[in-house]
Amino acid sequence: MAADANNNGSLLKFGLPKGSLQDSTISLLERAGWKLRQHHRNYFPDVNDSEMKCSLCRVQEIPRYIADGTLDLGLTGKDWIHETGHDKDVVVVSDLVYSKVSNRPARWVLAVAGDSPYKRPEDLAGKKVSTELMNFTKEYFEDANIPVQVEYSWGATEAKVVEGLADAIVEVTETGTTIKAHGLRIIAELMQSNTQLIANREALKDPAKLKKIQQIDMLLHGALDAESMVGLKMNVPEDRIPSILDELPAITAPTVANLWNKDWVSVEIIVNQSVVRDLIPKLVELGAKGIIEYPLNKII
Amino acid sequence: MAADANNNGSLLKFGLPKGSLQDSTISLLERAGWKLRQHHRNYFPDVNDSEMKCSLCRVQEIPRYIADGTLDLGLTGKDWIHETGHDKDVVVVSDLVYSKVSNRPARWVLAVAGDSPYKRPEDLAGKKVSTELMNFTKEYFEDANIPVQVEYSWGATEAKVVEGLADAIVEVTETGTTIKAHGLRIIAELMQSNTQLIANREALKDPAKLKKIQQIDMLLHGALDAESMVGLKMNVPEDRIPSILDELPAITAPTVANLWNKDWVSVEIIVNQSVVRDLIPKLVELGAKGIIEYPLNKII
Amino acid sequence: MAADANNNGSLLKFGLPKGSLQDSTISLLERAGWKLRQHHRNYFPDVNDSEMKCSLCRVQEIPRYIADGTLDLGLTGKDWIHETGHDKDVVVVSDLVYSKVSNRPARWVLAVAGDSPYKRPEDLAGKKVSTELMNFTKEYFEDANIPVQVEYSWGATEAKVVEGLADAIVEVTETGTTIKAHGLRIIAELMQSNTQLIANREALKDPAKLKKIQQIDMLLHGALDAESMVGLKMNVPEDRIPSILDELPAITAPTVANLWNKDWVSVEIIVNQSVVRDLIPKLVELGAKGIIEYPLNKII
Amino acid sequence: MAADANNNGSLLKFGLPKGSLQDSTISLLERAGWKLRQHHRNYFPDVNDSEMKCSLCRVQEIPRYIADGTLDLGLTGKDWIHETGHDKDVVVVSDLVYSKVSNRPARWVLAVAGDSPYKRPEDLAGKKVSTELMNFTKEYFEDANIPVQVEYSWGATEAKVVEGLADAIVEVTETGTTIKAHGLRIIAELMQSNTQLIANREALKDPAKLKKIQQIDMLLHGALDAESMVGLKMNVPEDRIPSILDELPAITAPTVANLWNKDWVSVEIIVNQSVVRDLIPKLVELGAKGIIEYPLNKII
Amino acid sequence: MAADANNNGSLLKFGLPKGSLQDSTISLLERAGWKLRQHHRNYFPDVNDSEMKCSLCRVQEIPRYIADGTLDLGLTGKDWIHETGHDKDVVVVSDLVYSKVSNRPARWVLAVAGDSPYKRPEDLAGKKVSTELMNFTKEYFEDANIPVQVEYSWGATEAKVVEGLADAIVEVTETGTTIKAHGLRIIAELMQSNTQLIANREALKDPAKLKKIQQIDMLLHGALDAESMVGLKMNVPEDRIPSILDELPAITAPTVANLWNKDWVSVEIIVNQSVVRDLIPKLVELGAKGIIEYPLNKII
Amino acid sequence: MAADANNNGSLLKFGLPKGSLQDSTISLLERAGWKLRQHHRNYFPDVNDSEMKCSLCRVQEIPRYIADGTLDLGLTGKDWIHETGHDKDVVVVSDLVYSKVSNRPARWVLAVAGDSPYKRPEDLAGKKVSTELMNFTKEYFEDANIPVQVEYSWGATEAKVVEGLADAIVEVTETGTTIKAHGLRIIAELMQSNTQLIANREALKDPAKLKKIQQIDMLLHGALDAESMVGLKMNVPEDRIPSILDELPAITAPTVANLWNKDWVSVEIIVNQSVVRDLIPKLVELGAKGIIEYPLNKII
Repeated sequence: MAADANNNGSLLKFGLPKGSLQDSTISLLERAGWKLRQHHRNYFPDVNDSEMKCSLCRVQEIPRYIADGTLDLGLTGKDWIHETGHDKDVVVVSDLVYSKVSNRPARWVLAVAGDSPYKRPEDLAGKKVSTELMNFTKEYFEDANIPVQVEYSWGATEAKVVEGLADAIVEVTETGTTIKAHGLRIIAELMQSNTQLIANREALKDPAKLKKIQQIDMLLHGALDAESMVGLKMNVPEDRIPSILDELPAITAPTVANLWNKDWVSVEIIVNQSVVRDLIPKLVELGAKGIIEYPLNKII
Repeated sequence: MAADANNNGSLLKFGLPKGSLQDSTISLLERAGWKLRQHHRNYFPDVNDSEMKCSLCRVQEIPRYIADGTLDLGLTGKDWIHETGHDKDVVVVSDLVYSKVSNRPARWVLAVAGDSPYKRPEDLAGKKVSTELMNFTKEYFEDANIPVQVEYSWGATEAKVVEGLADAIVEVTETGTTIKAHGLRIIAELMQSNTQLIANREALKDPAKLKKIQQIDMLLHGALDAESMVGLKMNVPEDRIPSILDELPAITAPTVANLWNKDWVSVEIIVNQSVVRDLIPKLVELGAKGIIEYPLNKII
Repeated sequence: MAADANNNGSLLKFGLPKGSLQDSTISLLERAGWKLRQHHRNYFPDVNDSEMKCSLCRVQEIPRYIADGTLDLGLTGKDWIHETGHDKDVVVVSDLVYSKVSNRPARWVLAVAGDSPYKRPEDLAGKKVSTELMNFTKEYFEDANIPVQVEYSWGATEAKVVEGLADAIVEVTETGTTIKAHGLRIIAELMQSNTQLIANREALKDPAKLKKIQQIDMLLHGALDAESMVGLKMNVPEDRIPSILDELPAITAPTVANLWNKDWVSVEIIVNQSVVRDLIPKLVELGAKGIIEYPLNKII
Repeated sequence: MAADANNNGSLLKFGLPKGSLQDSTISLLERAGWKLRQHHRNYFPDVNDSEMKCSLCRVQEIPRYIADGTLDLGLTGKDWIHETGHDKDVVVVSDLVYSKVSNRPARWVLAVAGDSPYKRPEDLAGKKVSTELMNFTKEYFEDANIPVQVEYSWGATEAKVVEGLADAIVEVTETGTTIKAHGLRIIAELMQSNTQLIANREALKDPAKLKKIQQIDMLLHGALDAESMVGLKMNVPEDRIPSILDELPAITAPTVANLWNKDWVSVEIIVNQSVVRDLIPKLVELGAKGIIEYPLNKII
Repeated sequence: MAADANNNGSLLKFGLPKGSLQDSTISLLERAGWKLRQHHRNYFPDVNDSEMKCSLCRVQEIPRYIADGTLDLGLTGKDWIHETGHDKDVVVVSDLVYSKVSNRPARWVLAVAGDSPYKRPEDLAGKKVSTELMNFTKEYFEDANIPVQVEYSWGATEAKVVEGLADAIVEVTETGTTIKAHGLRIIAELMQSNTQLIANREALKDPAKLKKIQQIDMLLHGALDAESMVGLKMNVPEDRIPSILDELPAITAPTVANLWNKDWVSVEIIVNQSVVRDLIPKLVELGAKGIIEYPLNKII
Repeated sequence: MAADANNNGSLLKFGLPKGSLQDSTISLLERAGWKLRQHHRNYFPDVNDSEMKCSLCRVQEIPRYIADGTLDLGLTGKDWIHETGHDKDVVVVSDLVYSKVSNRPARWVLAVAGDSPYKRPEDLAGKKVSTELMNFTKEYFEDANIPVQVEYSWGATEAKVVEGLADAIVEVTETGTTIKAHGLRIIAELMQSNTQLIANREALKDPAKLKKIQQIDMLLHGALDAESMVGLKMNVPEDRIPSILDELPAITAPTVANLWNKDWVSVEIIVNQSVVRDLIPKLVELGAKGIIEYPLNKII
C-alpha cells in the first residue's frame, strides 16, 4: 500500500493545503515557529523540525489521507471533511479561522441570476443546480424535500448561471464580491466553513505524536491570535494609575515599572489592535504620555 | 430548464474550450475567419458572425452540454467525451489535431516511480492508482482483469507517486517531459486523444445549423492545414521545367507565368513547409533562381 | 521661441500620439514603411527617413503644436482638435480609423447612474456633469439650452457618478464595456471621433513637405487598408471561370495564369477578409480547388 | 445636487488620494488603526469603522469636494489646494510629510535645458513655460514682473524642454533625479509642498465629526512618527546609570526595571532611529550589555 | 574525453548562442526551416531534423568547442573567435549580420568619461582601461605603442568609468545609446564584429556534414535576406509596361500574368522593403493600380 | 590613476556586492541603520551618512579594489578573495554568514554526471573540469596530484556535464538543489565560503576610518544576529520564578517587573527564535501566563 511508504515510527506526517491557502498557511507556520522551504516541484517542503514531515496536498484529499493513516495531522476545510464523508473518521483538534483574504469564515451560498424570479430554495424545484460540492448539495435539497438536478461543476461555477447552463449554483464565498460581480443574487446560506486542524485517530494514541500535535496546535493559535493583538506601553503619573487602569481592557494584569527619577511609572498591556484607536485618545485625556504601540509575533 | 434559455431558432450555439486550449482555439478561429473578443468575465466572447453564439466551457463539461442540446457544436477532447460517457450521445464531425504546445495527439499513460519495481500494468495488482480519469481507468484495469484501487486526483497527479500517496498514476502527456521531470517512468500508453469537433444530433438535422457547421469545419481545417504549408515561387528556364517538375511534390499542379522579355517562366507551388529545406537546394542545383517562400493563412 | 529650435528647412516635423495610441501608431507606421526606434526616454524616436523627424506628444497637445508651426504634421483625435479650439487653425489631411482595441470610431457619450431617473439630456438641468472635455460639453449643453454645472475631471470619470461626486459624465468609449461595468447607462451620444492626420497650413505650401505629407498619407492608408484585405488564389477549370467570376467581389480584375499541362487556370484576387469565410464554401461548390489565402502588408 | 447623495448625518466622509500616494496612504491608515479593503473598481474602499466612509479621489479634486461639502475631510497636497484656489475655503487640520518615495517635502522648481543660457527666472522673459500648475506659475511670474507665456502640460513635462516644445518648465520633484536624468537644470525653487489633512468648515462644527477628525489626526501622526522611532532596551550596572543617562537623547524619561538576582537594571528608551547607529557604540563603551532595538507601530 | 560522448558518425553537432542572441537565432532557424523546442533546462533543444543535434552554448565558448571538435558547426561572434585565439583553428563559413536589436554590425569602442580630458587613444598612456575583451585590448594598445593597464571587467563595464574605477573602457555597442546614457564619450572604434557561421576543419571533410553545412548556410541566408524583402504585385495597362519597368529595381525579371478580360497585365516583383515607400508613389503616378505588398519567409 | 578620483580625506569608500547578494545586503544595511537609495543606473547608491560613500561592484572585483585602495571597505566572498589572489593584500574584519536564500555558508563542490563512473576526485585523472573558479580548481588538483584539464566556464556550468562539454564541474551551491536538478552527483566538497567584511590595510591606520569600520562591523552583526532572536515576555507567580528561570536559556539575565496589584511578576528574556516552539509549552506547564513573543531589529 502506498500509505505505508513513509510510515516510520513517531515522525509526524503533517498535510498542508496546496493552492489558495498555501501561502497563508506557510506564513502562519513560520510565525508559529516552523520554517518551510518549498522546492520547484512541491512534494515535501523542508521543515526545520526533525520530528515531522510536511506534504502539500489538495484540501479535498487531506480528509481521506488522515482517515486512512497516510497522514497523521492536516489542515483542511470543514466543508471538504463533510463533503468527502470523513466527518466520523477523523478527529477535529481545533478550528483555525484564517484564509487567503480575510479572517472570516467562508460561506457556501445558494445563488441565482440577479434578474431571475427565484427568491427561496423551494422556488428551485425541478431546476438545475451546479456546484463543486455535489454530496452536500444533494443532501441539503433532499433534507428540504426540494427535487432538483444537481450537476458537478469543474470550475467557474458563477459563470454557469450567466451562461444559461444552470439555474442556480452552490458556491463558496467570503465577502460575496465575486458572486455580486457576476450579477448573481444570494438566496440562502447553506453552510459556514473554516479551516480545521484534524488528526488521525491512531496518531493521537501515540504519545510522541500527541505531544507534537498539542505543540503545533498551541503555537498555531499563538501565532494566529498575535495577528490581532499589540503591545501598548505608556508613562503615567503614579496617582493616575487607578483611573487609567479602569479604562484598560483587562486581558491580563498590566506590567508596571518605574521611570528614572520621576513620580511616574511605565504601564504596559497587551490589547486587541481594534480597540487601540479608541483607547489612545482616552489615555491621552487621562494624562498618559509617551504611548507606544509595538507588534507581537505570538501570544499564548 | 436552463438549457432552453438561449434556444433561439437557428442561431448556432458553439462551445469553446476554456483553459489550456483557449488561446490556441481563439487564434485558430481567427485564422479561420471568426474574430472573438473576450471580456473580463468570460461568459460569451463576442464573435463577428450573427449566425452563431460562442460560450467558453470546461472541456470536461462540453460533451454533456452537446448531448443535452444546451450547445449545438463544440470543441473538446476525445478523452473527455469518453470519460463522461457521451460517446454515443454526440456526433463527431471531425478530428482537429492541435494543442497548447504542439500538434501531436495527447497520450494518457500509466506511470510509476522511476525506482519502483513495476514494469507492466499487471504488476500493479492490489495497488493504488491515482487519476483524473476515473471511469476510463477503472474500465481499463477491469478489462485487463487487474484488481487495483482507483482514486480520484484533484490535480498535481504526478506528485502523488513522489509523495507516496499512490503507487501509479494515469495522466495525460504530449511529450513526456513533465512525467520524466517528476522522476516517473511510463509503463504503458492507455489511450491517444485529440481535439474533436462534436455536434448535437438534432442540430445536424436543422439545415441552417448543418450548413454553418460544415462551413466552420471546412475553414477550421483550412486554417490548421495552412500552418504547415507555404507558397514557393521560382524563376526557371523554360527547358528545365520538366526536370524541375519531377522534383516538386505534387499537391496541385504548379502555376506557370511568363517573365518579362525572357525565355524563363515563373513556377509557383504550394508545399509542406517541412520539405522546403531539402527542396530548395535541389531546385537551386536544377537551375531555379529567385526562389521565394511566402506564408499562407488558409488552404482548402 | 521654443518652436524655432528644430525649424531646419524642409525636414518634416511629425507629431505622433504618446500613450494609448502609441503602440498601434508605431506599428502602423512600420507597416507603412517607416521603422521607429524608441529610446528609454521618449522624446524623439529614431526614424529611418532623413526627410522627417518624429516627436511623441500627448494627443491633447498636438493640435496646438500643429497650429503654431512647432510641428508640421500630426496624428491626433478629431475630439481634441475641437476641444482645444484648433479646428480652424489646422488642415485635416485625412481620417484614419484605428485605435488601441478596435477599428471603430470612438464615441463621446453622456452617461448616468444605471438606477438614476435621468432619461434624456434635458433631465440633467441643474445637475453636475463631470468630464475631461470641458469646452465641448459646455458648448453642447448651451446649444441645447440646458443649464448644467460642468466640472473638469482629472480621470476615472466613470467613478464620479458611482461615488456621488457627479450626476452625469461625458466620457469616451468604443464599445461601452467600461461604462456598463461601472453600472452606468448611456443616455446620449454627443460626438463621434477618430484619428486624423492634420497639417500646418504653411507646411502644405512648402513643396518638399507637401510631397512628404502625401507620401505618408498614401502609405498609412495602404497599410491600414491591408489589415482587412487578403489575397485569394485558386485553381479552376477553364470553363468554370465565368460562373466563378460572377461570385467574386469585384475590387480589381482577377489575375489569371496557366497551370502546367492542364486545362485549368490559376485565378488570383484581393478581397476583404470578412467575406472569405462565406466565399470559400461557394468557390468549392463551383469547382475551385487548391484555394489558398495569404496575408498582405499594404494595398494601394 | 450630487453632493447630497451621501450626506447622512454624522458619518464622516473622508477623501483619500488616488494614484501615486494611494498605497502609502492606505498603509499609513492601517498602521494608524483603520483597515481598508479595496475592490476591483476603486470607488469606496471598505473601512472597518462605522463612523466614516472613505472615497478615493484625485488630489487635484479633493480641495473642491472639501470646499463644497461633498467630503468632510481629506488628504491632499498643499500645492493643489493653492492651485485650485481653495486656500481660503478649507481648514488645514495639520501637515503630514510623507510620500511615495521619501519623507521629504516636494518642491516645485523652475528648470531649463542643461545647455541653455538661462540662469535666473528673469532670463525667461518672452519665453514659453510649460507646467501642470498653470495658476500658480502665472501668479509667480506676474508677481516677479517677468512676462512669459505659460502653457498647460498634459504630462511628461520634462520632455517638453528636451523636445524643443518649451523653454522652461515648472515641475514637482522630491530629489531632482528625474529632472537631472532629462538633462535639465533647476534655476529656482518656487514652492515647497506636502500632504495636508484638510477639513470642511461646517464639518468641524459638528461635534461628532470634530471628535472623529481629532482622533484621525492624532493617530495618523502617531503612525507617521513611529516610522522613524524605535525602542532601545539595555542592561546596565546600577552605578553606571547616571553616565549612561547623560548620553541618552531625552525624549521621555527612561523606564527602569530590575534584572533577576543582579546589581544591574534594565533601561528602556524610545529614540529616533537615525541616532541609533551612533548611540549604540557609545553605550557599549559605557558598559551597557544586551542592547536590543525593537520596532514600533505608533507613538503618541 | 568529454567531447567524444556525442561523436556518433555523421550527425552534425551545431552550437547555438545562449543568451542575448538566443531568441533571434532560434527565430531565424525557424524561418530557415528548422523548428527548435527548448526545455526548462536548456541543454539540447529538440530540432526536427534527425541529421543534426543542437547545443546552446555561450558565444565565448563556441570557438573553443569548434576548434577541438566538440562541435562541428556554430554561430558565434567574430570578436570572440579572435579574443579566444581561435581565428586560425576554425573555418569561417559565412557572415550573418543580425542581432538582438538591429541588423547592424556591433562595434567595440574605446570610451571615456564625457567630461574627461582624453581625446585620442594616446591620451590614455599610463591609465587604467577596463574591458571584457582583455587579449584584444592589450594587443590593440601594444600595437599602438601606448602603455596602459588593462583590467578584466566582470560586467557593467560602462559604470566603471562613472564610479572612478577605470579611466576608459573598451566595450561593445550597436547604436551607442548605452554608452551615451552613462555620460561616456567614444574616442575610437577599435573593431567591428558580427555573427559568423564557423565550422570545424575535419567536419568539412566529411561529405555528409559538408552537405548539411551548405544547406544550413543557404537557408539561414535565405531567411535573413527575406526579412528585408517583400513581394509587390500591381495591375498595369499593357502599354505602360516599359515605362513602369524602367522604374523597377532590377533584382530578377518581373513576372507578368494576364488580367481577366482586360488589356491590363499583372506585374509582380521582389524588392527591398526600404525602397517601397518611394516606389509606390511613382508607380501610382505611372498608372499602376491595385498595388499590393506581401511578406516573404525566404529568398534564395 | 582612476583610484585617486574619489580619494577625499576620511570619507570611507564602501564597496557593496552587485547582483545576487545586492538586495539582501541593502536590506541588512537598512536594519543596521543605513538607508540606501538606488538610482536607475547603479553607480553610487545614496546613503544617509555623510562619512561614507557606497559603490556597487561585482564580488569578483571588490578584493582588487580593496587591495589597491580604490575602496576602503567591502563585502565580498571568501572564495573570490582567494581566487583573485588577494588573501594577503586585504584585512578580513569579520565573517558575515548571510546569502540570497539562506543563512548557510556556500560550498564549492566537485560534481559529475549522476550516471558516470567517477566516485572520487582521483577518478578524474586525464579528464576535463569546467569551472568559474580557475585558479582555485587548478590549485586543488595540483595539490592532490591529479592531472586534469581545467577549462573556464562562462556560466551555466552545471549544463556543461549534461551537454558532454566537460566530465566534471567545480561549482558553488548552498543546498545542492540545482546540482541535483541537473542530474549531477557531488563527489567532493572542496571549499566553504561566506561573505566577509574586508578592509584596506591603510584605511585601518586612519583613526576616523577605523572608527567607522568598527561601527559598521558592530551594527551589521547586531542586525544579522537579531534575525534569529526574539523577545519573550510572560507573567509568572512570584514563587514559580526559580523553577521557570531554570528552564530559560541563559543569554542575559531576565528582566523582572511587577504586575499591578498581584503577586505575579513580568519576566522578559531574549532568546533564539529556534528554541521558542519548545520553550513555550514548558513555560505554560510551569505556570507562565500571557506569554508574548515580539520581534527585534538589532541585538548587540
